[in-house]
Amino acid sequence: MTNKGSLIVISGPAGSGKGTVVRLLLQDESYKVSISTTSRQPRADDIPGVTYNFVSSEEFLEMITKGELAEFAEYVGNFYGTPIKSVEELLKSGKNVILEIETQGALQIKSRFPEAILIWLSPPDYETLEARLRGRGTNTDEDINRRLTAAKREMQFIPYYDYIVVNEKGLANEAAEKIREIVNVDKMSTSLNKGFLKSFYNNK
Amino acid sequence: MTNKGSLIVISGPAGSGKGTVVRLLLQDESYKVSISTTSRQPRADDIPGVTYNFVSSEEFLEMITKGELAEFAEYVGNFYGTPIKSVEELLKSGKNVILEIETQGALQIKSRFPEAILIWLSPPDYETLEARLRGRGTNTDEDINRRLTAAKREMQFIPYYDYIVVNEKGLANEAAEKIREIVNVDKMSTSLNKGFLKSFYNNK
Repeated sequence: MTNKGSLIVISGPAGSGKGTVVRLLLQDESYKVSISTTSRQPRADDIPGVTYNFVSSEEFLEMITKGELAEFAEYVGNFYGTPIKSVEELLKSGKNVILEIETQGALQIKSRFPEAILIWLSPPDYETLEARLRGRGTNTDEDINRRLTAAKREMQFIPYYDYIVVNEKGLANEAAEKIREIVNVDKMSTSLNKGFLKSFYNNK
Repeated sequence: MTNKGSLIVISGPAGSGKGTVVRLLLQDESYKVSISTTSRQPRADDIPGVTYNFVSSEEFLEMITKGELAEFAEYVGNFYGTPIKSVEELLKSGKNVILEIETQGALQIKSRFPEAILIWLSPPDYETLEARLRGRGTNTDEDINRRLTAAKREMQFIPYYDYIVVNEKGLANEAAEKIREIVNVDKMSTSLNKGFLKSFYNNK
């Protein structure tokens, strides 16, 4: 079976628990996140090369025009993107590469890497989503409503995702395990194992 | 997530160990095989309704012309087929339905049930395949060569299968577990969970 790493896109509404699930996946050494590149200014808690790779707006625009980005988006005046090269290098080394990005970036990835696995991480129900957003405590009602509206707007893109993983309350470990299963099963796909078939049936 | 049963087609060359793997899957009560219907005469070790459902050639032809079969094939003068009704009833009751059939029947199933999961069970390599066929002891060299040629001919259909599961020597349990994982992961497919999405995002 194939030894190549899988490219895994994980999206979901704010409050879906993406951060926790990704951290759990990273406990397994075969999983790595691809570090995003951004043109925004580093903040006090940023670690260059760990939280983000920081470049100037000019450098970012040059990366776009040179076709070096697998996906990118602009958010309140700053650019964020995923360099193709770093994804490809991780995949070649056999790592499963996680991209935690929003819906439009996910579709850009699917277009550039058709073998990418798009996973929508979902809270079990709308009430849990709302409770999780309120639970953070740092958000105003306006913030929460804006995020709930955004979650509903993102829904139009879910049919383009391959899988829906429900992150049940207190069971982020199970959600991470489901994602590991998806990745293991994906490696048994016929389309990824043409080499195995060829060596088996053609050379006799 | 969806509670509907999955339709699982398992094919593979003679000597791939299909029989053993299917028996292991059936130890789990959520898995059932669909009993084939045939026009051949019952043999001494046949149990009607268990090994096959037996009908006359006329009855079989009537089932064909009434569109009651999901797939059928003729083999040395006898018909073998899978009734649509029995598959649908098992699926509706939440069972995962296993069909152990050959390649052309598998494609007929995919055409009638696009959500069917087509799994190609493969020996780890060509040498193991040959050794397994010889190991049965009851086959002449001519038989073995005929089966090896058939295995190579069937290869043209493998690209239409969804997954390749390798049945390593002495590890049929692992192959069965891989198939269970494939079925579990399939139930997280976005296309099978439109109901979940609708209840989540639309009714608010």
